[in-house]
Amino acid sequence: MAEKGVIVELIALLRLEKFDEVKERLDDMPVQDIAEAMSELELDAQQRVFEALPDERQTDTFSYLSPTAQRELLDSFSDAKSRQILHELLPDDRTAFLESLSADELEDHLKLLGPEDLKQSLKLLGYPEESIGRLMTPHFVAVKPDWSVARALDHIRHEATRGETINFVFVTDQRGRLLDAIKLKEFILARQDAKVESIMDEVFYSVLASADREEAVQVIQRYDLNTLAVTDKHGVLLGIVTVDDIMDVAEQETTEDFQKLGAAGVLNMSLLEARPSLLYRKRIGWLLGLVFINIFGGAAIAMYEETLEAVLVLVLFLPLIIDSGGNAGAQSSTLMVRALATGDVQLKDWFRLWGKEFGVAAALGLSMAAAVALLGFYRGGPEIAFVVAVSMICVVVLGSMIGMLLPFILARFKLDPATASAPLITSIADIGGILIYFGIATLVLRDVVAAAGAGA
Amino acid sequence: MAEKGVIVELIALLRLEKFDEVKERLDDMPVQDIAEAMSELELDAQQRVFEALPDERQTDTFSYLSPTAQRELLDSFSDAKSRQILHELLPDDRTAFLESLSADELEDHLKLLGPEDLKQSLKLLGYPEESIGRLMTPHFVAVKPDWSVARALDHIRHEATRGETINFVFVTDQRGRLLDAIKLKEFILARQDAKVESIMDEVFYSVLASADREEAVQVIQRYDLNTLAVTDKHGVLLGIVTVDDIMDVAEQETTEDFQKLGAAGVLNMSLLEARPSLLYRKRIGWLLGLVFINIFGGAAIAMYEETLEAVLVLVLFLPLIIDSGGNAGAQSSTLMVRALATGDVQLKDWFRLWGKEFGVAAALGLSMAAAVALLGFYRGGPEIAFVVAVSMICVVVLGSMIGMLLPFILARFKLDPATASAPLITSIADIGGILIYFGIATLVLRDVVAAAGAGA
Repeated sequence: MAEKGVIVELIALLRLEKFDEVKERLDDMPVQDIAEAMSELELDAQQRVFEALPDERQTDTFSYLSPTAQRELLDSFSDAKSRQILHELLPDDRTAFLESLSADELEDHLKLLGPEDLKQSLKLLGYPEESIGRLMTPHFVAVKPDWSVARALDHIRHEATRGETINFVFVTDQRGRLLDAIKLKEFILARQDAKVESIMDEVFYSVLASADREEAVQVIQRYDLNTLAVTDKHGVLLGIVTVDDIMDVAEQETTEDFQKLGAAGVLNMSLLEARPSLLYRKRIGWLLGLVFINIFGGAAIAMYEETLEAVLVLVLFLPLIIDSGGNAGAQSSTLMVRALATGDVQLKDWFRLWGKEFGVAAALGLSMAAAVALLGFYRGGPEIAFVVAVSMICVVVLGSMIGMLLPFILARFKLDPATASAPLITSIADIGGILIYFGIATLVLRDVVAAAGAGA
Repeated sequence: MAEKGVIVELIALLRLEKFDEVKERLDDMPVQDIAEAMSELELDAQQRVFEALPDERQTDTFSYLSPTAQRELLDSFSDAKSRQILHELLPDDRTAFLESLSADELEDHLKLLGPEDLKQSLKLLGYPEESIGRLMTPHFVAVKPDWSVARALDHIRHEATRGETINFVFVTDQRGRLLDAIKLKEFILARQDAKVESIMDEVFYSVLASADREEAVQVIQRYDLNTLAVTDKHGVLLGIVTVDDIMDVAEQETTEDFQKLGAAGVLNMSLLEARPSLLYRKRIGWLLGLVFINIFGGAAIAMYEETLEAVLVLVLFLPLIIDSGGNAGAQSSTLMVRALATGDVQLKDWFRLWGKEFGVAAALGLSMAAAVALLGFYRGGPEIAFVVAVSMICVVVLGSMIGMLLPFILARFKLDPATASAPLITSIADIGGILIYFGIATLVLRDVVAAAGAGA
């Protein structure tokens, strides 16, 4: 990985205009590290690093820059240079860059593409956002079943220079429909005069270009693939997606889940690059929504104002009681949301888990009741201790139930389970907690409350 | 993916003892799907499905079962059958199975291994838990730099049957030290009489067997590799890890982060398989710890009992104020924890992010203050409105600051940033929120409080 020392050194060398030494330093660096180092530099220094790279590494390095950095750098180039970079980018990397642009910027950049690249880019951009079509590259090697292995290998040799990956070689019929996906190693292990069909096993996995990219993640992860075929609905092979792109998608999707679970809104970009105004817009919605829910919490307290006035010591335990319900709920919802996301748990399992969760929650509630009863006794005597303990059990069970069930309910209605965020569960559990706590208190302490009411 | 219909059908066919049809059905199913279907069956049905599989697919299917299912099934076999399965498992799958066993079970199962397998397994189990050594397989293909490409290909053909993957072929010196990693495709593209050294570029990535598996995830993800070489500290090639294993590890590590962020404790197993007692033990620690923090919240309220008694309406806004601080904090901590985990943000960025977070939090606090001021006015008049609004700003800023800084502080001290869970942030922010809210109220409403005190 690019270490800080390397970056400092690069900056120093650039300042001293020792471009030969910059070149030398870059020679030993993987393009990913160069891209990371560039992200720490000013635009003019970025340009100079880029120019110091040999031509064949420029485009590769470019593909690892962030979309913002790509745009800035490209705009600083001559049109000829921009054209060259855009042409040399692999189709999936080009799609990723183009889809990061605004409509106006997109138009400007499409003008820089040659007719073939333009056609291809428009086709890939024609697939829905977050679809597999946007991820795929149309570079693959396909052979025919009646070819000999030797002829297939010749064809592979000829095509492989441009192909992004040839760990898998595809077999298609005359109409381009996918018949099989065969590991490159099988071609090497097979007798050279054998027919391709003799090494076909017709076990292969493919996904539709129009399907959600999440599906490609699941198939690649489940069946341990390096490369996955993408077809249209007639089974015609359109392109491939590779495991490295899928790992990036999986990481993005997981980041979305985290951000939803934190009720922070989905950023879809680097936290470092996100502007304050974007962060504000993403976060304020949930915060205001939760305020709205919390107002009901206040209203619930208002219902029991009389009890509270009579036994003010009850307030001291309020944060403890309501937070405990929220905390237990946050635990359950996090466990469920993640288990649903990884496929560890499915919708049909809800009843089995519900029973288990109820038992666990009751045990948790009992333990916590024991812990706070003593404190209740010390602060308010046996009756308060009783109220606090019983409330704690009910609140922990209630919070856990909400936290466990809400993700399932959301999933059932095709909504994202990750919407059942810790803050949402906490806010809902709060209202229940307040009602339970003051309800029990009013019941148990009714003599005290009545006496206070009569005295007033 | 295994659909429910398939499983129901399998169960029906097994009940009717139509084993031929079971066989036929299994023939078309990928081993991953068979393993999933088996997980829905009782042990005796599992055995019959397993027996219906051709020998060469049994071990493959076995490797996709959960550790619990693997143990139960293996224990139901004859010693000869268990021996065969354990022998045929790929070394990394065998390590994964063995490390899931208790000490006693491990001893029993090690007895079933032949001397070579035993030696290999003990070596792999000798690496620390969660190290790369536990993940790797010692099956790889290595060639020498002075060989011709044709000889290398012959050697690859000979070795490939047992080798887990040959997308990369490794070049080692006489002492087994790694010199290069070359894509299989390069051997096909090269002239057959060229020397291996002529296609070497000496650009390769390797990790130490003793390093944390997280490092393998990062290197594979960053440099888009399918296969990563594992060496000892002298650079001797010991084995390889493949991207499919790495994806599983990445998923597990992310699940751990989720569970930590939900303060639910790290389960390290399927939620469906986790016993209630385990779930209880994992969760109770954090819940009790948070109770302890919440007690300080109660103590903070006690400090302002006089204010509260005089102006009881303040209680109505308590859940709203403290929850809002917690919610804003949960947003910040989630964003930071995830950004730190993906490498989007690094320790050195804390100051830059701190400034941005402060601005965003102030804007969020202002918006929320505006939203609740009206409610405060309606419930308690202008002074209460003022107290609630000012408190809201302070509380949201405080919560955000805690949520943003705590993950950095934890990371700085080499602790896991994900420990800064939503429940923890909420509980800490609560105490601050209570002090701010009642502090401001006492200040603003001092005349009312004094009058009430004099009246009592």
